[in-house]
Amino acid sequence: MAREVSAKDYHDPAPVPIFHVVELSQWSFYRALIAEFIATLLFLYVTVLTVIGYKSHVRDACGGLDHLGIAWAFGGMIFILAYCIGDISYGHINPAVTFGSLLARKVSLIRAVMYMLVQCLGAIIGAGIVQAIQMGYYERNGGGANTVSPGYSKGAGLGAEIIGTFVLVYTVFSATDPKRAAKNSFAPVLAPLSIGFAVFMVHLATIPITGTGINPARSLGAAVIYNKAAAWDDHWIFWVGPFIGATIAALYHRFVMSAGAA
Amino acid sequence: MAREVSAKDYHDPAPVPIFHVVELSQWSFYRALIAEFIATLLFLYVTVLTVIGYKSHVRDACGGLDHLGIAWAFGGMIFILAYCIGDISYGHINPAVTFGSLLARKVSLIRAVMYMLVQCLGAIIGAGIVQAIQMGYYERNGGGANTVSPGYSKGAGLGAEIIGTFVLVYTVFSATDPKRAAKNSFAPVLAPLSIGFAVFMVHLATIPITGTGINPARSLGAAVIYNKAAAWDDHWIFWVGPFIGATIAALYHRFVMSAGAA
Amino acid sequence: MAREVSAKDYHDPAPVPIFHVVELSQWSFYRALIAEFIATLLFLYVTVLTVIGYKSHVRDACGGLDHLGIAWAFGGMIFILAYCIGDISYGHINPAVTFGSLLARKVSLIRAVMYMLVQCLGAIIGAGIVQAIQMGYYERNGGGANTVSPGYSKGAGLGAEIIGTFVLVYTVFSATDPKRAAKNSFAPVLAPLSIGFAVFMVHLATIPITGTGINPARSLGAAVIYNKAAAWDDHWIFWVGPFIGATIAALYHRFVMSAGAA
Amino acid sequence: MAREVSAKDYHDPAPVPIFHVVELSQWSFYRALIAEFIATLLFLYVTVLTVIGYKSHVRDACGGLDHLGIAWAFGGMIFILAYCIGDISYGHINPAVTFGSLLARKVSLIRAVMYMLVQCLGAIIGAGIVQAIQMGYYERNGGGANTVSPGYSKGAGLGAEIIGTFVLVYTVFSATDPKRAAKNSFAPVLAPLSIGFAVFMVHLATIPITGTGINPARSLGAAVIYNKAAAWDDHWIFWVGPFIGATIAALYHRFVMSAGAA
Repeated sequence: MAREVSAKDYHDPAPVPIFHVVELSQWSFYRALIAEFIATLLFLYVTVLTVIGYKSHVRDACGGLDHLGIAWAFGGMIFILAYCIGDISYGHINPAVTFGSLLARKVSLIRAVMYMLVQCLGAIIGAGIVQAIQMGYYERNGGGANTVSPGYSKGAGLGAEIIGTFVLVYTVFSATDPKRAAKNSFAPVLAPLSIGFAVFMVHLATIPITGTGINPARSLGAAVIYNKAAAWDDHWIFWVGPFIGATIAALYHRFVMSAGAA
Repeated sequence: MAREVSAKDYHDPAPVPIFHVVELSQWSFYRALIAEFIATLLFLYVTVLTVIGYKSHVRDACGGLDHLGIAWAFGGMIFILAYCIGDISYGHINPAVTFGSLLARKVSLIRAVMYMLVQCLGAIIGAGIVQAIQMGYYERNGGGANTVSPGYSKGAGLGAEIIGTFVLVYTVFSATDPKRAAKNSFAPVLAPLSIGFAVFMVHLATIPITGTGINPARSLGAAVIYNKAAAWDDHWIFWVGPFIGATIAALYHRFVMSAGAA
Repeated sequence: MAREVSAKDYHDPAPVPIFHVVELSQWSFYRALIAEFIATLLFLYVTVLTVIGYKSHVRDACGGLDHLGIAWAFGGMIFILAYCIGDISYGHINPAVTFGSLLARKVSLIRAVMYMLVQCLGAIIGAGIVQAIQMGYYERNGGGANTVSPGYSKGAGLGAEIIGTFVLVYTVFSATDPKRAAKNSFAPVLAPLSIGFAVFMVHLATIPITGTGINPARSLGAAVIYNKAAAWDDHWIFWVGPFIGATIAALYHRFVMSAGAA
Repeated sequence: MAREVSAKDYHDPAPVPIFHVVELSQWSFYRALIAEFIATLLFLYVTVLTVIGYKSHVRDACGGLDHLGIAWAFGGMIFILAYCIGDISYGHINPAVTFGSLLARKVSLIRAVMYMLVQCLGAIIGAGIVQAIQMGYYERNGGGANTVSPGYSKGAGLGAEIIGTFVLVYTVFSATDPKRAAKNSFAPVLAPLSIGFAVFMVHLATIPITGTGINPARSLGAAVIYNKAAAWDDHWIFWVGPFIGATIAALYHRFVMSAGAA
């Protein structure tokens, strides 16, 4: 591809310190927290609203959306949000992505913890706004909460969450690899689109199984606002699964995809 | 990302004067007005035609489109129109985007007012062409006008318009931020696609609630041609909501997203 | 946007001569003809196969595609074909685009005539392959031919074709404007995607009215292979409409969009 | 387009040796094998899961996906996987693409054989994971295996596979042509997206005929796990068809598209 630079001159960026106190005095750190908070709020708002709207209309024989529209809502929102805030906070919008980035030493521990907190807070508020707008429809239609569907075992649901999150974090790491950008300078152009498509794809595949979590903040936000036993019983799956999937993706990227010569 | 320039050398462009008399003597100003007029006309033509065509076929057991197709029509048209005229008029095609750009001092007051006028005029003519082509179908199928759907309060409709327009104008401002382009020179490539996707996403979420306005010219054009009481009763919502949403997005961008060091 | 060059240094390319004899001795001219032939063949093959497949399944209550899938087939094929052969033949794949390019003096008369011939030939063969594969389904399901749907006047069908082709050729001209590329060097990146989306959008809007032509080769190919009176009675609309639309788009681009200072 | 370099200075890269022993001692060779293995595994996992999920819900009156969603799953996965591993293994994920690349002397014989082996192995495991998660649904819904649909002849199925694979490999070769990248430096940006769309398009057209193979590893993986006579009877079609289509595409690219002056 065009404009290659010598890969020999490439050096990995130094790992971010686990405790990186200096960032606490930088405005850009707090701006990143606000950006993650607002983005996760908007993510839950648009996607849960789409899910509820779909379920309200599904009996109208094709008058509403099917799973494809719901999958587009999740994937499309991640595309635009990752595009909008990628240069400000790396555009995680997802505790599993943040966890993977922590393992890869791309963010500090304090940043990771703070990101997860504001992501969860944004998700709860985003789902709460949907509840306020949808009123009765919200309760009747499951509140967009993630559960393992009837006919599937807990193990199937957990497996679907692990692999689905692997697909997402694998794409995130490939799309944002600085070694790769040094070799193929055009690769970053499509990064947010490919990350959005990863979310879109996983939803197509696993909406029938778990409703698709692969983002613990999304699952938590919907569960807190819906707040029924059904949403809480399986809730651990939507934290454990994504964190395992993100861990495997981080290891795979570190020891295979970005190992050795560029 | 590749080809970074020193962010230290970056200076914000000077605000555009409120009254910028010199542009009135420039052909590029009038070309921009024509471009906005034609683009908004085409926007209403394609989208309202799609809405009416969908409603004509919805009883044919899935032979037509569902909400997903309608959402694509709105989002896809904004993608191609913003792409085509972005370098000529900034590609607003929407009085709410123009209003946000005025608040951000990106366009002068006279340009903003003239843009809104030609956008509304284009929208009315675009919807009128649909009426001429669709004849009886047009009246029977609601003319593509925005109203608050039964089962939702006026407040819910207003809230949906405010947040939906926020999502759009937030994306527009992120995509076209000159400070960002100075830092990440590839960010502008996907700008029109991400703006189109923002429109697509908001339609997926709020078609069931208001039919989705987030563009006062679109709502006005359909209301003028359809011209039934139902379309006029709620019409204020489709001006007040988008202008509030655009204002919040302009403030958010100014005081958070683009504040401080690049 | 980034990397602007001085627009003052820009000069329009010289118009291509009406009779440009020298190109007849160049291999690149014949390669372009082969590329247009194969691309139009593939375009008809994929799109008509999709239309017939959809109609075969439409009674299965949602087991097949709806209009959205058909619109994607047409738009998506134009995206990939224009992307693949854009650097070889400019990627017209459509006599209306070729006609507009002739008016704009971007191609010679002999090239325009030869393009249209091979496009029509490719379209006929592409539709013929579908007939061979689909056998009985092909006849029963209308062969993908364009006609004005019941309930619409000839005038409505003609108007839909004129405006639809205007949207397409307007996008083509904006996407491939050399003056624009000189000013905003990233604009060409999304050119084939935006052209594909223009085709997608027009299909969403006008499939219910005419099945959507906006490409005389596509309409001719399907009519020749289907060869029923219904397909021939309205056939003039699918040549006259697109050529009028392309003419208006060429004039609009010449005297508004690309007129004056860059 | 912008930033053209002199095409006169361009020389085709030397053909890769048939036996290229030195690559066997390079880590990048084994990394490429792992990347192809994991990518094909993920490809089968997501797509077959989507197919089974769709068939489980198709009787719920539009509550699931239609063919459009399935086509997106296949095309979207190829987009993200080709994007993620394009710089590591060229992103084949398909023995037909590997076969075409061998004919074009882009990869050595040993690399081609090893790629096909790991692609097939990854596909089998990917389909196996779907079976483990879907349990009873998997058997009842055909296991995502490719067969010629009732009402179509073997010849029609073979023809559909040949042309479909031609469309895919034709797009791959156009998108990754080094001669083209030397002339139009932006062409590589959309390469993975256009390749993904080629897969999407072919699925829209031929799901009703064969379920769409155009990838022998995908067909083999589903057949091995499903392991019913129906899946094996037609299985030769999904190797012979794709290899013929890839051969024609390689010849077409060599002797037409990339022949002569750039």
